[in-house]
Amino acid sequence: MIESDAAGSSAPAPLRISGERLTARLNALAEIGAIEGDGCSRLAFTAEDGRGRDLVVTWMNDLGLEVSTDGIGNTVAVRAGVEPGPPVMCGSHIDTVATGGRFDGNLGVLAGLEVIETLDAAGVETTRPLAVAFFSNEEGARFPPDMMGSLVYVGGMGLEEALDTVGIDGTTVAEELEAIGYRGSLPSPGPVPHAYVELHIEQGPVLDIEGETIGVVEGVQGISWTEVTIEGQSNHAGTTPMSMRHDAGLAAAAVAVGVREIASSMGGNQVGTCGMIDLHPNLVNVIAQRAVMTVDLRNTDEEALVRAESALSELLDRIASEEGVTVSTRRLARFEPVEFDPNVVDLVEEQAHRLGLATRRMPSGAGHDAQMLARLCPTGMVFVPSVDGVSHNPAEFTSEADLEAGANVLLNTMVALAGRV
Amino acid sequence: MIESDAAGSSAPAPLRISGERLTARLNALAEIGAIEGDGCSRLAFTAEDGRGRDLVVTWMNDLGLEVSTDGIGNTVAVRAGVEPGPPVMCGSHIDTVATGGRFDGNLGVLAGLEVIETLDAAGVETTRPLAVAFFSNEEGARFPPDMMGSLVYVGGMGLEEALDTVGIDGTTVAEELEAIGYRGSLPSPGPVPHAYVELHIEQGPVLDIEGETIGVVEGVQGISWTEVTIEGQSNHAGTTPMSMRHDAGLAAAAVAVGVREIASSMGGNQVGTCGMIDLHPNLVNVIAQRAVMTVDLRNTDEEALVRAESALSELLDRIASEEGVTVSTRRLARFEPVEFDPNVVDLVEEQAHRLGLATRRMPSGAGHDAQMLARLCPTGMVFVPSVDGVSHNPAEFTSEADLEAGANVLLNTMVALAGRV
Repeated sequence: MIESDAAGSSAPAPLRISGERLTARLNALAEIGAIEGDGCSRLAFTAEDGRGRDLVVTWMNDLGLEVSTDGIGNTVAVRAGVEPGPPVMCGSHIDTVATGGRFDGNLGVLAGLEVIETLDAAGVETTRPLAVAFFSNEEGARFPPDMMGSLVYVGGMGLEEALDTVGIDGTTVAEELEAIGYRGSLPSPGPVPHAYVELHIEQGPVLDIEGETIGVVEGVQGISWTEVTIEGQSNHAGTTPMSMRHDAGLAAAAVAVGVREIASSMGGNQVGTCGMIDLHPNLVNVIAQRAVMTVDLRNTDEEALVRAESALSELLDRIASEEGVTVSTRRLARFEPVEFDPNVVDLVEEQAHRLGLATRRMPSGAGHDAQMLARLCPTGMVFVPSVDGVSHNPAEFTSEADLEAGANVLLNTMVALAGRV
Repeated sequence: MIESDAAGSSAPAPLRISGERLTARLNALAEIGAIEGDGCSRLAFTAEDGRGRDLVVTWMNDLGLEVSTDGIGNTVAVRAGVEPGPPVMCGSHIDTVATGGRFDGNLGVLAGLEVIETLDAAGVETTRPLAVAFFSNEEGARFPPDMMGSLVYVGGMGLEEALDTVGIDGTTVAEELEAIGYRGSLPSPGPVPHAYVELHIEQGPVLDIEGETIGVVEGVQGISWTEVTIEGQSNHAGTTPMSMRHDAGLAAAAVAVGVREIASSMGGNQVGTCGMIDLHPNLVNVIAQRAVMTVDLRNTDEEALVRAESALSELLDRIASEEGVTVSTRRLARFEPVEFDPNVVDLVEEQAHRLGLATRRMPSGAGHDAQMLARLCPTGMVFVPSVDGVSHNPAEFTSEADLEAGANVLLNTMVALAGRV
């Protein structure tokens, strides 16, 4: 049961972190694995990831936190509360994609340190302990699946299975984790926190375009990925009358247009994307024999997502029949939507408003460690704007003012959850 | 002026070629450069092309024809007429694509030899000379452009330019032609024939599907090839609301669907194909930044083709505006339609009917040497069915009965044009 201990007009004025200090930590961490264009390359369990972890753990130790690491390398730093018991945890990840930015993941972890340092400087204690965690291999770019560390933390994947994972470079998680010295002794699944709050950049354009500072994240979209293979008949583009065609390329195009129509007509949070289309033989003067394409459907509402999937299925049947092509499908991924705890969501919004920040309730379109922690404890997320929605790219950018605003919301939400003494 | 000397009910019974002998020659030629699945690989000016030429020239010599070769390797074999003067010519090509069949091109040349041998065996002479030609590099698969030999023959391309052409393997036409011994001394452009008739497989499905034996070819479709490049904005497929997308992949799909609508709604001989679509980055969870695609429009009527082009242009403008993407185009190819000589077309039809064959007037959707010869002299073509419309493929197939029927139409058309003595 989550209670908002600090809510109401009688609460003390909001605490505020130091944007300068937060930026300094982000910059220092970004120097490890730095790539051209202000980006970062710290793939999970590489030497760069190891050096990034070392730096963050040094900061954790400097703040006097109690640092422990589990068998998959998840690292949790705890600040004691006045009373013992499960901590109010924040966190995220510090691994990046091969050509990533400096904010994705790192912000949530370093803002957590900033929360601790701010409370220390202000001499504020909390009833419950506070914790800052970084979870291993959130990106999954080197060792699929993504969110591996938090998945193991919540017991959704066995430790041995995770350690045996073979990466795209043929190495295993176990040997690479051992090599960087982060195969810890704490067991998995990990201890259940009192609550979990994650600050993250939006990685989408909504806050930036709408001019709002804080995204109050209500949940994570469910994902349905389908690979569609269309078999038509290859023929000469000049000599085959329109009425005699079985054009796999045209069918693929009709699928993409139809997916757009499904998403647009359903409205709400429904999105649909055909990001990959491969035609064969893919020549100017040959009607395509075969098309392989992907359909990415997402919604925060499971029932709506199922409706979108069945609309796709009807669309494929109709196109197969109209064009005289054969359509087969393969499910690439399917995750149900995650709904965050309504009390934590309300609290994030309330704290943002106390700070005078413009908010927007929104779903997360991307996956985050928070969706795993939501299986264990009341969970919420705070988004800050990504300029132009750019992410997984060195050009990823969030202004210092927005970083600071997000960290302030995190600080005050955690303090409210932990109880200011 | 073409007169049908043999027309009318008082004409002698139609002559008939030997289907067995024609098939034997097709099989013998197909052994040179044979590939799996009964196919052929005799790319222009390769050693295989050279050996194919040697075999056909041997046959020409065996028939007592006067054989000559020009500077690009076009080879013409002439049977004298009772009177001197320009010959009634037939022909085609004996080069193939890398994984071609045994009928495309070869049929027109070997049926020409069969015409000569049939007349010899029957002791029939013609007023005008007859000629059988094979033109170099019709496919253009190794040395673009296609129809190079006939283009040089009619003066549409200079001999030196053709000889300097660099192939996909870095060699030049001149050196490769020299190597196979077919750089002849006859000048280009070549002598103007009295008329030209080409027998060819349809390379499309119409005759096969409609159950007709002889295609009376009225002309060759004009071709308009456009490369379309669409620049959108790459973004996360989960986090970008439908209303904020500038999806180059969706725009490309809409172009392909729109091109189908243009062709279908115009009707007649209009065809439209988007055979090539490349998306970037082409990933399941990323909205495409860029799409490059091709649009192939063809019509036998130049005015209609221009209408189709302007409908495409309006389509691109509309999609660019609706999706908020930038569209640019590059013309890859543009050829005006070719109309064959109405008298030759009528004569082909008449001779087919005299032979009791079911005919269909139709355009050629593919390019043929005949469209080049049409610049010089009255020209026509005879099509026979391609099973399933398959061509440029080892599986290319035409039944012996259809091959024989087509060669009989060629024989009687040539005799009518040359005047049976």
